[in-house]
Amino acid sequence: MAKIFASDDLADLARGAAFLSTGGGGDPYIGRLIAQAAFAEFGPPTILDPEEVADDALICSVAGFGAPTVQIEKLICGDEVDLVFTKLQQYLGRKVDALIPAEIGGSNSMVPLMLAARQGLPVIDADGMGRAFPELQMNSLSVHGIRATPLVVADEHLNLAVVEAESDEVAEQMTRALAIQMGLRVFIGCFAMTGRQMKEAAIHGTLTLAHGIGRAIREGRARGAPVDSLVRYLRTTRTYAHAHVLFDGKIVDLERRISDGFSVGLCRMEALSGGNGLAEVAFQNENLVLRVDGEMRAIVPDLICIVDRETAEPIPTPDLKYGQRVKVIGVSAPPKMRTDAALACFGPAAFDLPEAFRPIEEIVAA
Amino acid sequence: MAKIFASDDLADLARGAAFLSTGGGGDPYIGRLIAQAAFAEFGPPTILDPEEVADDALICSVAGFGAPTVQIEKLICGDEVDLVFTKLQQYLGRKVDALIPAEIGGSNSMVPLMLAARQGLPVIDADGMGRAFPELQMNSLSVHGIRATPLVVADEHLNLAVVEAESDEVAEQMTRALAIQMGLRVFIGCFAMTGRQMKEAAIHGTLTLAHGIGRAIREGRARGAPVDSLVRYLRTTRTYAHAHVLFDGKIVDLERRISDGFSVGLCRMEALSGGNGLAEVAFQNENLVLRVDGEMRAIVPDLICIVDRETAEPIPTPDLKYGQRVKVIGVSAPPKMRTDAALACFGPAAFDLPEAFRPIEEIVAA
Repeated sequence: MAKIFASDDLADLARGAAFLSTGGGGDPYIGRLIAQAAFAEFGPPTILDPEEVADDALICSVAGFGAPTVQIEKLICGDEVDLVFTKLQQYLGRKVDALIPAEIGGSNSMVPLMLAARQGLPVIDADGMGRAFPELQMNSLSVHGIRATPLVVADEHLNLAVVEAESDEVAEQMTRALAIQMGLRVFIGCFAMTGRQMKEAAIHGTLTLAHGIGRAIREGRARGAPVDSLVRYLRTTRTYAHAHVLFDGKIVDLERRISDGFSVGLCRMEALSGGNGLAEVAFQNENLVLRVDGEMRAIVPDLICIVDRETAEPIPTPDLKYGQRVKVIGVSAPPKMRTDAALACFGPAAFDLPEAFRPIEEIVAA
Repeated sequence: MAKIFASDDLADLARGAAFLSTGGGGDPYIGRLIAQAAFAEFGPPTILDPEEVADDALICSVAGFGAPTVQIEKLICGDEVDLVFTKLQQYLGRKVDALIPAEIGGSNSMVPLMLAARQGLPVIDADGMGRAFPELQMNSLSVHGIRATPLVVADEHLNLAVVEAESDEVAEQMTRALAIQMGLRVFIGCFAMTGRQMKEAAIHGTLTLAHGIGRAIREGRARGAPVDSLVRYLRTTRTYAHAHVLFDGKIVDLERRISDGFSVGLCRMEALSGGNGLAEVAFQNENLVLRVDGEMRAIVPDLICIVDRETAEPIPTPDLKYGQRVKVIGVSAPPKMRTDAALACFGPAAFDLPEAFRPIEEIVAA
């Protein structure tokens, strides 16, 4: 992973993470810039394979929290990220040994890299979900019993709160209430865990994976077939191997609003000439379900990624626009994200979707 | 003050505090019961005169926070009050030497007494405002530069947050957002200060004062003239000497709703036969302004107290009812609560009232 610190590689990583984060996870351009600036000032951090981390090491996450649409106006300074980290460390009363992204998002993969550079800490090549999800408790760490709390939340004015709650669901509600009051773009430090817990619960290798996705897109562009290159690359991976273009069309209608502290909405698409019917993607920060002519074609926790049909550029939900020509790619989530316990936490019912979960490979085969 | 721990005395104190808290400050019946139960189990706490406290002692407040209307459904357990105190002490990294009420409210004078009994700590005969106010920063402590933060907030499930903010106004907004999420009846530990700061900023002698008011009401009832007894007693005090019955009538209309985490509304009264016109009292947890026939007769920070016209029982805003026969008593606030700095913090403009502050003694003289 040392190579990610060349400029191209950082762009690849941010772009790949934006793909994996299925519309949410923060803006990859802003993400890349903050990591790049921190690397230039402090030098790049070491990336550790999960297996390199000691069982008794203390690990935590830092991430942006709020609604992605707000991030475009409220950029990242760095001081607020330092603050959530140092306050969490102080509250824990013990030095943190390494950072891990909570989610592999366009900016949420970059925030830990930036902080690691600023604090001289390593980052683990793994994350809490192998994608992005809108709520705190929606991740493999919580599913494996690792607690998000004590959680530190801070805004750009360095106002902060430390949250301790009886469950990660309650912690989400308290942190969301604070985030709304604090302007809906805040940073959190959370998920203090041991190396042993991380190895069991985290999704491994996702920085490498995001980097590979971004490189496949870039190299595919040079050959004039980026979507094809991307799908082929995913099929070579062990855990994201079922990747399919599920729709090819243009955006004809878009509902997007801030509700209860999330960016929620619906993106409607029409097939390009010769293609099949009408499609819709519902989202809550991240894309939740793809329906084509009323029929479910992919659903959380499987990944539903909207990309530019010519360049394969992943399109975050705040950047979806009327008239865009897009392809919708469905990708199988890693097995750890599809267990019964995982589905109870972030399967369709957690988002009040009427459909039951069905793995994308089954739907495609049917 | 040792005498307040007889049963009558505790009832007097709660009733007097309910009078001083001008409609807010929590329910005096619930307040008295929790103090009484704690005294029975742990023994009563020592009451200290402010001057007895060492300059370098560490002092803090505990209080209920939210909307008084909710308190009737969500009672006080004690564990949540212990929790905010022990967490605050832990966060400060130093043992607290004494407690002080943040406000002299029907239950908010009792919560520190209960906690003091449970923790074996003394309580100071003083408070932060000599009345009650709805928002965190509205008190003489904040006006004198003592910070409410770090502030610990907890609910009955023992969910908690520690808030640190750039100002007490921002701390109020963050704590209010949390309180709304947590069910609008929470407890806070806050206003860590030294003995020296307390002596300068607090309103002294208000437990004694509340006790005296309650006793005057009780003794007045035995003589069949409780309102008269109350007003006469106030006139013997140094700092609450301007006390006047400003309206005598019955409640003919009542608007009361929960808005942005407060109980807000308007109480309209009609004079009893032979009396003067129509009156209205606007409130936000506490009573803010009395207008009679459209003319302002008393306004914050002076005290506007609605009492039962026969028994002089102070009526908290949640207990106001259509048809009640009431008297509205106006009382001058202590000089510390009327300075320019104090008026900037909790004068009429802080509540968006159109009128300027005018001391009650001037209005009555005019």
